[in-house]
Amino acid sequence: MFELKIDDARYWKACIDSIVGLIDEGTFSITKDGVSLKAMDPSGISLVSFSIPNKAFSKYDIDKTSTVGLNIDNLSKILNSSRANEALVMKEKDGKFSIEFISQNSRRRYRLPLIETRKEAVDKEPKIEFDSVVEVKSDHLKEMLKDANLLSTYIGFKTDKDSFVVVAKGDAGELEEEHSGTADAIKRIEVKKPTGATFNLDYLERMISACPQNSNVLLSLKTEEPIRVDYKIGEAMLAYYLAPYMES
Amino acid sequence: MFELKIDDARYWKACIDSIVGLIDEGTFSITKDGVSLKAMDPSGISLVSFSIPNKAFSKYDIDKTSTVGLNIDNLSKILNSSRANEALVMKEKDGKFSIEFISQNSRRRYRLPLIETRKEAVDKEPKIEFDSVVEVKSDHLKEMLKDANLLSTYIGFKTDKDSFVVVAKGDAGELEEEHSGTADAIKRIEVKKPTGATFNLDYLERMISACPQNSNVLLSLKTEEPIRVDYKIGEAMLAYYLAPYMES
Amino acid sequence: MFELKIDDARYWKACIDSIVGLIDEGTFSITKDGVSLKAMDPSGISLVSFSIPNKAFSKYDIDKTSTVGLNIDNLSKILNSSRANEALVMKEKDGKFSIEFISQNSRRRYRLPLIETRKEAVDKEPKIEFDSVVEVKSDHLKEMLKDANLLSTYIGFKTDKDSFVVVAKGDAGELEEEHSGTADAIKRIEVKKPTGATFNLDYLERMISACPQNSNVLLSLKTEEPIRVDYKIGEAMLAYYLAPYMES
Repeated sequence: MFELKIDDARYWKACIDSIVGLIDEGTFSITKDGVSLKAMDPSGISLVSFSIPNKAFSKYDIDKTSTVGLNIDNLSKILNSSRANEALVMKEKDGKFSIEFISQNSRRRYRLPLIETRKEAVDKEPKIEFDSVVEVKSDHLKEMLKDANLLSTYIGFKTDKDSFVVVAKGDAGELEEEHSGTADAIKRIEVKKPTGATFNLDYLERMISACPQNSNVLLSLKTEEPIRVDYKIGEAMLAYYLAPYMES
Repeated sequence: MFELKIDDARYWKACIDSIVGLIDEGTFSITKDGVSLKAMDPSGISLVSFSIPNKAFSKYDIDKTSTVGLNIDNLSKILNSSRANEALVMKEKDGKFSIEFISQNSRRRYRLPLIETRKEAVDKEPKIEFDSVVEVKSDHLKEMLKDANLLSTYIGFKTDKDSFVVVAKGDAGELEEEHSGTADAIKRIEVKKPTGATFNLDYLERMISACPQNSNVLLSLKTEEPIRVDYKIGEAMLAYYLAPYMES
Repeated sequence: MFELKIDDARYWKACIDSIVGLIDEGTFSITKDGVSLKAMDPSGISLVSFSIPNKAFSKYDIDKTSTVGLNIDNLSKILNSSRANEALVMKEKDGKFSIEFISQNSRRRYRLPLIETRKEAVDKEPKIEFDSVVEVKSDHLKEMLKDANLLSTYIGFKTDKDSFVVVAKGDAGELEEEHSGTADAIKRIEVKKPTGATFNLDYLERMISACPQNSNVLLSLKTEEPIRVDYKIGEAMLAYYLAPYMES
């Protein structure tokens, strides 16, 4: 049994948007500390780790640690119905899960079926000692991905001393986009060792699509190793891993 | 012969929008009192009754009662070309029908072919003694239909004492949306007897798609009987009937 | 070798937009006076002539007259990445062509392959003694094309004394749209001889799609001869010719 309340239903929608791009079903873990979900996408090349502390909720009643397996696509569609000034209550009782949108004298309740998700749950995140971190403004990062998308379905990131370089290459031409540590787009560059790696553009786009405007995204890089992408949505924390693309 | 003038061409476009979702051709009846059209949609499960009094026109010259059969799809497309500050003149003379958009020193005239519409004209509306009426704010009603659409292609309406309940059910889950008579969405609930019936969502959406923002829609209900949907566009009055969906 | 700089990258994008609707590849001629391109569309029924003087550039270094053959589709896509406050530098050196977008501490460089375009270059424009010229406000002209598009894929233009008439005809009806010289839509009408001709709507729409808002388009007409369409984008001058449609 649990009952969780969030005062702004649209905020919860924004949180779930950060997951729905990568996975279509998933299992939330609900502990006394907060709600979390770790899952690999069906293709197995990326991992999403979502967590939100109990203090983000205005009501957080749980009787024991529990798990809730949901079709994330359906959850996301239902959250799209969020309206301004609606609160949201998620309840589980006797194996039934419901989401209630509550406003002045109106109440809209969706009951969703609980599902068993694939058992190979992800408990641990990869441990990588990254050689560079770059903090990029979210809006600029979205534009960099678009720039690369003009030419290719892959994007390369390179770091070197005080520079962050985006590269892409295709039949229509080649892109080289260079940002120094003082560029508008960049918040911070820390380079222990120069790095370079190439990634699937589509996955990166789905990872950062839910990132709020005017916020920052942390990219952690190591040559030919997975990239880690971190950002926040209010109190919620997102971490993604994406395997590098190896040219054969 | 007739010549009808409306000072705001865009208003007439809004009126025709209320019809075009349900029927692709129709016959307007033009009498000394005003213009009206009654028609069933091609599938025969819904009926639209449109009427607008002569006082809505700035010029209303007719020599006798007449009928004008038109392709409503084409009429609607042509009305989409309405621009701000254009007046509109509809004329029929010697079997030729024209629509003229008139603005400062410019004149745009479309001639439309008259057509014979299917003869089984609709003269009478169904007579139903409804058990409940609910007056809902148009914007809220549109959102309720969207909520249900997340789960199903059908929507159920229930009334009981002081409550109006919307239900929908599908593989992805179940919706129950309850509004009391004092809810933001509701203008008025009058319940002689509790009612419940289920309707095709797509038809309801097409019926209310032309309903102006910040206006009200009257729903008249009786258990397992057709729903009647009423609203106004300025002086124009719309009434729709839609047969209930019977689960087999 | 050349290096051309434009202070507002978005302006150059707007210029190339005026070409990309008609041709997918083309050869720019770069002389000491400026940059120009003349080309027929692949179907051969229209011609575009684009020219921009050297003074439109903030840097204009060339060592000799040269030509640059480019895939215009790709060029246009890359220019779509222009952002506010970016300057643009186009360079050719040792047979390599690059476009660089430059902003505060960031630099984005695309290298594009040079291509050989079809050799039948267009050097001369048709010489036609037009009988009428009509200067139309760009936004109104776009609406006239849309009006005609409701009924047909062709549009007729007629001039007579002080009037400019647009006609179109299809299964759904007929359009006749008349503008006097003092109409809102019209800047100027000069008629030496009345004219009438019919044109492919799609081509006309592609010709004027890049025309700035609140500007004017000059139409030069002669009965059953090609139309000439002229407008400016800042310092850049566009002239298009389109063969008339002859009903068989």
